[in-house]
Amino acid sequence: METTQIRLAERPVGEPDDSTFTTATETLPELEDGQVALAIRYLSLDPYMRGRLSTARSYATPVEIGDVMVGGTVGEVVESRFEGLAPGDFVLSYSGWQTAAVVDGRHVRKLDPSVAPVTTALGVLGMPGFTAYAGLLEIGRPKEGETVVVAAATGPVGSAVGQIARIKGARAVGIAGGPEKVRALTEEFGFDAALDHRAPDFKEQLKAATPDGVDVYFENVGGKVFDAVRRRLNTYARIPVCGLVANYNLTSQPEGPDQLPGFLGQVLTQSLTVRGFIQDEFTRSHGRDFVRDMGEWVRSGQVRYREDVVDGLENAPAAFTGMLRGENFGKLVVRVSH
Amino acid sequence: METTQIRLAERPVGEPDDSTFTTATETLPELEDGQVALAIRYLSLDPYMRGRLSTARSYATPVEIGDVMVGGTVGEVVESRFEGLAPGDFVLSYSGWQTAAVVDGRHVRKLDPSVAPVTTALGVLGMPGFTAYAGLLEIGRPKEGETVVVAAATGPVGSAVGQIARIKGARAVGIAGGPEKVRALTEEFGFDAALDHRAPDFKEQLKAATPDGVDVYFENVGGKVFDAVRRRLNTYARIPVCGLVANYNLTSQPEGPDQLPGFLGQVLTQSLTVRGFIQDEFTRSHGRDFVRDMGEWVRSGQVRYREDVVDGLENAPAAFTGMLRGENFGKLVVRVSH
Repeated sequence: METTQIRLAERPVGEPDDSTFTTATETLPELEDGQVALAIRYLSLDPYMRGRLSTARSYATPVEIGDVMVGGTVGEVVESRFEGLAPGDFVLSYSGWQTAAVVDGRHVRKLDPSVAPVTTALGVLGMPGFTAYAGLLEIGRPKEGETVVVAAATGPVGSAVGQIARIKGARAVGIAGGPEKVRALTEEFGFDAALDHRAPDFKEQLKAATPDGVDVYFENVGGKVFDAVRRRLNTYARIPVCGLVANYNLTSQPEGPDQLPGFLGQVLTQSLTVRGFIQDEFTRSHGRDFVRDMGEWVRSGQVRYREDVVDGLENAPAAFTGMLRGENFGKLVVRVSH
Repeated sequence: METTQIRLAERPVGEPDDSTFTTATETLPELEDGQVALAIRYLSLDPYMRGRLSTARSYATPVEIGDVMVGGTVGEVVESRFEGLAPGDFVLSYSGWQTAAVVDGRHVRKLDPSVAPVTTALGVLGMPGFTAYAGLLEIGRPKEGETVVVAAATGPVGSAVGQIARIKGARAVGIAGGPEKVRALTEEFGFDAALDHRAPDFKEQLKAATPDGVDVYFENVGGKVFDAVRRRLNTYARIPVCGLVANYNLTSQPEGPDQLPGFLGQVLTQSLTVRGFIQDEFTRSHGRDFVRDMGEWVRSGQVRYREDVVDGLENAPAAFTGMLRGENFGKLVVRVSH
């Protein structure tokens, strides 16, 4: 059995380009006891992967040059020497950017396609959904009537943040790029207000959309959106920081003035809470509740999701780079094989 | 009865100077029912007062031009129409920079000079001590064996932070300016390590003093100390922010590069918690425990304190400006009258 792999060829400076990745084909090893062979059906593309391309200090070790790019996948078992998994079963695993893999059966999670489409395990019912759930409820802690703002709001994290905020009785304000996404925020995801960060009067729109200020800013973007939203924060506002896509391709520190002292001053005078997190931290404390709550909300339609499916593993690099620019619309997934 | 008052004459741009304050004498009104007349014995000088001179957005309303400068005081009751207070009683009140005041008896707290010197109500057993206690225990949450770093460490907040950290089993590293203060940190306050931020090799010293990194940075200074300490932070480090003295006299944003995006990136990749606070927030939740714990620790000598007493209200402005430069050594108090 063969696997086609996308490997890291060269660390990008700034935006990844044609020389960043390379493709190779490899023969998979024979199955050992406890292992399963997977045909990968779907690969998840997520912003955190940009961090794995870099050697900058981070929460995870970088992908080494020559290694297969990491990533969550949904695979179909084609051969099994692991009790409890049989050919035809769908599993969530962390098999990376490739078409097939041999993995330890203990390191995969079996999916039930009758409960929800298997791709949701990569999105609303998976890591991005859990990022929204744990970050918003544990760090953001929105109270009834408070205002929650989130950017990249049609993405898998942002859309869940807004909808969970509303379930908790808060007002949800979503920020996205372009009229189509902005329309989806109110019409499809039920946000109370939606803004286009590309609008020339974005700051004024933000002000109008947050008449009572902002109590929770769920930060997954950074950059100019952060600069604008922080002027609207209320005393005791909470800022869960789960991503900073706007900064990921930065090659140097931005020009001055240095806004850090002013921001710390704001943290002080407004008693702000700024808290970075990776969802793993909350698996033990919130994982079970997430599975129960989010499963229920998705079933009942209280939480909707949108997927952006790209066909073919060979298109993963371009789709990934496009995502960092905000070109996807919903959870970006690569259909690797049928 | 007359009171000599120091009033705000002009908002300072940068460091307060001779034109910032003015002195005036006023006759106090006759006592009404429920009021007491106080001869002010001690006035507390604290960094937060710099914020009151400015109209920049803050947690408190600024002092108006012409108003008496605000501040905590220890006064002696000279006349009383309030049940429970009699001439000769010492009380804590917020009477400001003046020699005498008429205040509502319900707004003062009676002090017991037999328990501790009355000036401690302005320092280790008062607002600064409570800032250290609540900020460290509620936000910093040092665990046994962790490393806590604090600057302005011979000040009333910093010295309490270090000593409480040690009581909780953490390693305390103090930063101060000048050899005399640095010596006091280990010899008088029992810090595990002490550093001079003026030393040319300060960064290297900091590295050597924090071999296991920094788990809690109690931020009351900002500026270059913050820049250095943040390079030493561990994953999940906590930064209670109670003051930024280094920035208080800044007249413009510092030159670039802009370090804010990089700092937010650090918050993200290291899962940092940055939390601004004013001690008031924790009065209800931690006030009672503070009185019990800190009283006990001061009595037992587990928490020591140092006071820097300046004679005469007329010297308050210069002492205040000096404090913002770090010239005081211990809790700065003005002896207003005997």
